[in-house]
Amino acid sequence: MSLVAVGTVAFDDIETPFGRAEKVVGGACTYIALAASYFVKPVRIVSVVGGDFPQEMLDNLKNRGADLEGLQVRPNEKSFFWAGKYYRDLNTRDTLDTQLNVLADFDPVLPETYRHAEFLMLGNLTPQVQMRVLDQLQRRPKLIAMDTMNFWMNTAMSDLLQVLKRVDVLTINDEEARQLSGEHSLVKAAKIIHQMGPKFLIIKKGEHGALLFHGDNLFYAPALPLAEVADPTGAGDTFAGGFMGWLAKTGDISMENMRRAVIYGSAMASFCVEKFSVERLQELNTEMIERRIKQFADLVHFRM
Amino acid sequence: MSLVAVGTVAFDDIETPFGRAEKVVGGACTYIALAASYFVKPVRIVSVVGGDFPQEMLDNLKNRGADLEGLQVRPNEKSFFWAGKYYRDLNTRDTLDTQLNVLADFDPVLPETYRHAEFLMLGNLTPQVQMRVLDQLQRRPKLIAMDTMNFWMNTAMSDLLQVLKRVDVLTINDEEARQLSGEHSLVKAAKIIHQMGPKFLIIKKGEHGALLFHGDNLFYAPALPLAEVADPTGAGDTFAGGFMGWLAKTGDISMENMRRAVIYGSAMASFCVEKFSVERLQELNTEMIERRIKQFADLVHFRM
Repeated sequence: MSLVAVGTVAFDDIETPFGRAEKVVGGACTYIALAASYFVKPVRIVSVVGGDFPQEMLDNLKNRGADLEGLQVRPNEKSFFWAGKYYRDLNTRDTLDTQLNVLADFDPVLPETYRHAEFLMLGNLTPQVQMRVLDQLQRRPKLIAMDTMNFWMNTAMSDLLQVLKRVDVLTINDEEARQLSGEHSLVKAAKIIHQMGPKFLIIKKGEHGALLFHGDNLFYAPALPLAEVADPTGAGDTFAGGFMGWLAKTGDISMENMRRAVIYGSAMASFCVEKFSVERLQELNTEMIERRIKQFADLVHFRM
Repeated sequence: MSLVAVGTVAFDDIETPFGRAEKVVGGACTYIALAASYFVKPVRIVSVVGGDFPQEMLDNLKNRGADLEGLQVRPNEKSFFWAGKYYRDLNTRDTLDTQLNVLADFDPVLPETYRHAEFLMLGNLTPQVQMRVLDQLQRRPKLIAMDTMNFWMNTAMSDLLQVLKRVDVLTINDEEARQLSGEHSLVKAAKIIHQMGPKFLIIKKGEHGALLFHGDNLFYAPALPLAEVADPTGAGDTFAGGFMGWLAKTGDISMENMRRAVIYGSAMASFCVEKFSVERLQELNTEMIERRIKQFADLVHFRM
């Protein structure tokens, strides 16, 4: 089934305790699309880049089956740019620089073929832009997932609440779930967030894994402990890409299959962090992914 | 099979965002013994209390099948006392007061019946005291587990390293594993700690669950997300009690059964935090425990 992915396609400067990378390819939509491309084709991209964005990367996306019709290219402008520095625990980071550039007045336009999307992933963007995408759909997708962040809770809460009403799955981290709900207990937070709209809530906890809440049904996918983590950038978006890619591939949105999708998302994220930028996400294959899924199964296996 | 539990039997003052409790029963050995008592009898206690410790609590322990022959009572002295305050996230706490009292010159004496213990749990104490216990054993137990903390790493590292050489299982939290090994990655930390002695390493991560490392064999037991957590005090000791209690009950120290034991430990810890002090640990039964084990199984269940 078709998957539409909305979000940034951009450049990052990244510093971690294990190295640094300058002006490398990043952006939520890039990570989402690459991760999802291992499961479903085409992934239809909605984004905007400047003339500085490398044609080679766009070709890579096309070769991996992405549909770039919804990608706006503005030759005389610059792509969105983010610079960040991670601390030793890799769970905390500082934003050093943000240059909106083409994103400042981004108005997403959905090509005709996109408007009947069966699966839609709204990457982290201004809630207003996310809403603009929803408004252009000609029928309601089978499943709409969205990502957001604390920044929008602080600056655009009422817009955010409007978008939340219209989506099925929300993916945020634990601190964001606490902020959005006003509850410290994630169990209580989930109940409140369910009432805001999303029937499914995924709480991403980085090295501590991910939780999927659906009413009283609760699933905990631990993260795979890794000997080496090079760069956590994009792990959350990669998770979303693997999660939605698996659902779009199977077309099955039962809770049973959602659990499986969370494991696929976690597996893709565990690859993502092994190298800087999107490097690792371009060198995988089905066998490598299935082997990792088995590692996740073994990680939590016990017999009663 | 027999289980010997060594550690403090004490008083706590506890303040959490959800309430406070003054001079309530605490101590590592108390939590270990109560948790283990649901699986194995007798739990043979090695500890020391003052004349101020309530006879009622000692009777409760006895009624739950504890053997108190190794519990020294010093009528004219006071029991060990700890006061602590938890912050909103319940993962961080400040120690407000520590009064060693009877613990200051505690010299553990193992009664004759204890010296052939098949399972031994060394709760968090001075490494020298832990060593004194090991020196009194007449044969090597089938399994020796120990708990320790950052304080001993800072003040008695060489003693600690001596004890580590002689134990099979070490239970510490993630920050302690990082400090002990000098490695941030828990996978790398585990390899280094294995070389220090313990073939099994359990890393306790509070609300994020527990990891069991045994060479390349790795098990991740998530914690059960709870709507209400009243008091995290003793959760780690309760985990150890459930873990060792299950192993002593079954007499099986295969990795397969160790995984199961980690789940039993996690289940007991999830009960412990629901009420202040040792209250919850005195009102359980086998059916309640088995029901919770099923919740843990369901929590991580997915089909490939």
